Amino acid sequence: MDSRFLAAIGIAPLIAAPQLYARDRNSREGDIRPNIIFFLVDDMGWQDTSVPFWSERTMYNDRYCTPNMERLADIGVMFTQAYTSSISSPTRCSIMTGANAARHRVTNWTLRKGQTTDEASSTIKIPEWNFNGISQVPGTPNTFTGISFVQLLKESGYHTIHCGKAHWGAMDTPGENPCHFGFEVNIAGHAAGGLATYLSERNFGHDNEGNPVSPFAIPDLREYWGSGTFATEALTKEALKALDKAKEYNQPFYLYMSHYAIHVPIEKDERYFDKYKAKGLSDKEAAYASLIEGMDKSLGDIMDWLEKNGEADNTVIIFMGDNGGYATGTTWRDAPLYTQNYPLNSGKGSAYEGGIREPMIVSWPGVAEAGTRCSSYIIAEDLYPTILEMAGIKRYNVPQTIDGKSFVPLLKHGSDPSKGRSLYWNCPNIWGEDGPGIGPTCSVRNGDWKLVYFYESGKKELYNIKNDIGEKNDISFMHRDIVRKLSKDLGNFLRKSGGQRPSFIKTGQPCPWPDEL
Amino acid sequence: MDSRFLAAIGIAPLIAAPQLYARDRNSREGDIRPNIIFFLVDDMGWQDTSVPFWSERTMYNDRYCTPNMERLADIGVMFTQAYTSSISSPTRCSIMTGANAARHRVTNWTLRKGQTTDEASSTIKIPEWNFNGISQVPGTPNTFTGISFVQLLKESGYHTIHCGKAHWGAMDTPGENPCHFGFEVNIAGHAAGGLATYLSERNFGHDNEGNPVSPFAIPDLREYWGSGTFATEALTKEALKALDKAKEYNQPFYLYMSHYAIHVPIEKDERYFDKYKAKGLSDKEAAYASLIEGMDKSLGDIMDWLEKNGEADNTVIIFMGDNGGYATGTTWRDAPLYTQNYPLNSGKGSAYEGGIREPMIVSWPGVAEAGTRCSSYIIAEDLYPTILEMAGIKRYNVPQTIDGKSFVPLLKHGSDPSKGRSLYWNCPNIWGEDGPGIGPTCSVRNGDWKLVYFYESGKKELYNIKNDIGEKNDISFMHRDIVRKLSKDLGNFLRKSGGQRPSFIKTGQPCPWPDEL
Repeated sequence: MDSRFLAAIGIAPLIAAPQLYARDRNSREGDIRPNIIFFLVDDMGWQDTSVPFWSERTMYNDRYCTPNMERLADIGVMFTQAYTSSISSPTRCSIMTGANAARHRVTNWTLRKGQTTDEASSTIKIPEWNFNGISQVPGTPNTFTGISFVQLLKESGYHTIHCGKAHWGAMDTPGENPCHFGFEVNIAGHAAGGLATYLSERNFGHDNEGNPVSPFAIPDLREYWGSGTFATEALTKEALKALDKAKEYNQPFYLYMSHYAIHVPIEKDERYFDKYKAKGLSDKEAAYASLIEGMDKSLGDIMDWLEKNGEADNTVIIFMGDNGGYATGTTWRDAPLYTQNYPLNSGKGSAYEGGIREPMIVSWPGVAEAGTRCSSYIIAEDLYPTILEMAGIKRYNVPQTIDGKSFVPLLKHGSDPSKGRSLYWNCPNIWGEDGPGIGPTCSVRNGDWKLVYFYESGKKELYNIKNDIGEKNDISFMHRDIVRKLSKDLGNFLRKSGGQRPSFIKTGQPCPWPDEL
Repeated sequence: MDSRFLAAIGIAPLIAAPQLYARDRNSREGDIRPNIIFFLVDDMGWQDTSVPFWSERTMYNDRYCTPNMERLADIGVMFTQAYTSSISSPTRCSIMTGANAARHRVTNWTLRKGQTTDEASSTIKIPEWNFNGISQVPGTPNTFTGISFVQLLKESGYHTIHCGKAHWGAMDTPGENPCHFGFEVNIAGHAAGGLATYLSERNFGHDNEGNPVSPFAIPDLREYWGSGTFATEALTKEALKALDKAKEYNQPFYLYMSHYAIHVPIEKDERYFDKYKAKGLSDKEAAYASLIEGMDKSLGDIMDWLEKNGEADNTVIIFMGDNGGYATGTTWRDAPLYTQNYPLNSGKGSAYEGGIREPMIVSWPGVAEAGTRCSSYIIAEDLYPTILEMAGIKRYNVPQTIDGKSFVPLLKHGSDPSKGRSLYWNCPNIWGEDGPGIGPTCSVRNGDWKLVYFYESGKKELYNIKNDIGEKNDISFMHRDIVRKLSKDLGNFLRKSGGQRPSFIKTGQPCPWPDEL
């Protein structure tokens, strides 16, 4: 359907009030508004760091070296129960719109306009999800329309910088372009959610004529082609140049440092590879560890920049991963699979903790207590109201429903917004790789309880996450009342938010909602 | 002064209402909202075209070949009295903000942050004009703050594309970046108001290592380096790629096709140079003519694109130059100087018609009558409300005063907004080149009368533009009443709008306003 011929909306444009723009670095109260850096790592597992997010130190904490994450943890707050969706696009669209994945319906990864990325099934039919991603304007089918927090930051006087992976809209849709969402600078962000290669020797995925060899070629880094600069480093250098500019602009800035690392292809970052080989790791796992340390070095470079430029005390840093660590294929990881996020079960793509629990650290000098841990749970869509509150923006009027809750109170030792709150996930899709908890599911967490519902089989699993973080013991049979209660809670949320579900090919009937079984 | 320590503004952010964004291609009334292409040519004189804007055909109309301007005139309205400032930055800042140059105070060309570009004088001191340009946010000294119409177009659902010269803010200020003003795509726009070279053989001003050799190196066109593609053509190709995208986006689009042509250096566009040599022109003048035809070819390519893509009937095209043709130096033009805009006197930089009267054609299929001429006068700042009205945006609330008036009524054969209206110019600056009418001046036009006031000498000249388009006969001595009336009108406007004036070095006293003498 061509939106040109849709009925007119019938509302006069009411352009933003002038005060919206005419703001300087100061907030309404006269405080300096902080710079905000959101450092998002692709496909980073909860244990892919030397910073221990679990109550115990793991072999992975000993294996990986992330000295700059340690440095950030020393000055910030570690969130030990930070959640996302299990796949990149749903997480990133939730962050950008403040809407839960059930509501925005971008429940699998996006790439080509009008094309789903689901693996085919002979038994169930995937619903018409928003495979074109998100946009700030209507007019594209299978797209969720919402205004990003970045747009609001820009309009309130922030200089907004995008560096790295975007992955909000399919190719040839408005949402493929970060500047569509209010970014003023876009370095290397486009429709693709992955990268052809980290290697400048391969022109980051371009042939000798400069043409991209696949949709995953990284744009904008031409000056590094053939220079021996790893993609992670090239992006960092460009981000620092953009920060140098931002400093000149005398505006508070928002930097979205969104690394393509540590997404597959798991190529060696030669700066660190030998070190991990010397530790006895296989080529594959040494390469994986080198990707992590290269990413960590980028964090350090940015922290160094802040210190050198006198901005460290006035800058919030939010470090996070976008979904669980990759654990489903021996092309890139050593067997045994599904163990790479230990103590969590499974990894990317899974409804289990291995797919959705993320390393997260937030530093806010003078506001959040340094070197502390917070075990209250938060979820991706919470970033939207949180970042706006950090910027002093509390009143805004956007078309979409904001499911997220600001976690600023947690940083200020105020009330706990997670108290009594349920978190919801919905993935009525088939990602394509196999493993525990991977497939069409929906789930809910409330307190220590987590219910996972498998759409096709109707199976329900109940875990007490506090006692069983590895989700080894399904105790649904012992707590029918809790299962019932959580099923109702989840079913209500999904119906209310417009969540989608698969249907059975044989009967044409939709799979039951969790509280219909 | 560091804006971080300014007192807080004390106004809560009031973020744009959702309906602002949630619009599709349709207007409130259900009509399809038109695409808008603003095709702005740098330094193009009134006669630098085969389209005759005067009542008589000139030798220049016969010399230059602009078949696509002719084609546009056939489907559009020729404005024979379209005005701008006499220098690029003032014009461009007026277009972008809707404010007269006296108000925005960007009264000379901008380049480096904190640095004026005025030529030194031993007798008069130039006021502290806004040599850092314009910005949408405060925080930079010597900068006019305003919200651009492009920002408003974007917020109402237009896809916004910048291609070519920007020149709104000095280097390292927020305004250097077109995306700061609401553009979603920026091709080759930055702080500079000129170009190092049109030649891809010289990498558009970059050395072999890819470093810019001057601030005038054209950014973003690396893929054309060494390809033999003239800058005008490369920009056009990139603009067409952006239009292909825009078509996919299913949004109305705004394309700002802002050519670096025909600014100096006047280099040969080899595609057309020989043709003009064969006509008997000198190398210099043949090169100049080739620049014009190369620019005209770009217009044709864009019109072809519209036809091929079914968008011709729904696209407004506004063709315009940004100030008078270059006529002050024999490095680039043949003697006799100051005649290149005949029948107009002088050229770029001058208060006379040669500096400020521009070729302008507007086509709006189905709305504006094809093949007509309009002799009502309009001025650069009128573009702001005009373009917004074309897009169906009539209510908006921006911090700056909009001096411009929409000329949509002229296109619709409605009322004449120029009736009884005065147009004002203020240039308290020293551009640097010499010639008739060049220097610190202010001027006013009302009806057929035009008064030019020279700040330093106190001289006033009065012309009847209808009878004396070449401003040969100063008849101020014959019409003291009109001189008095226009002086008062001009003085009042300048004081009310915050216009600036130079002062005498000897006495420290400001030069008198025109109505103080």
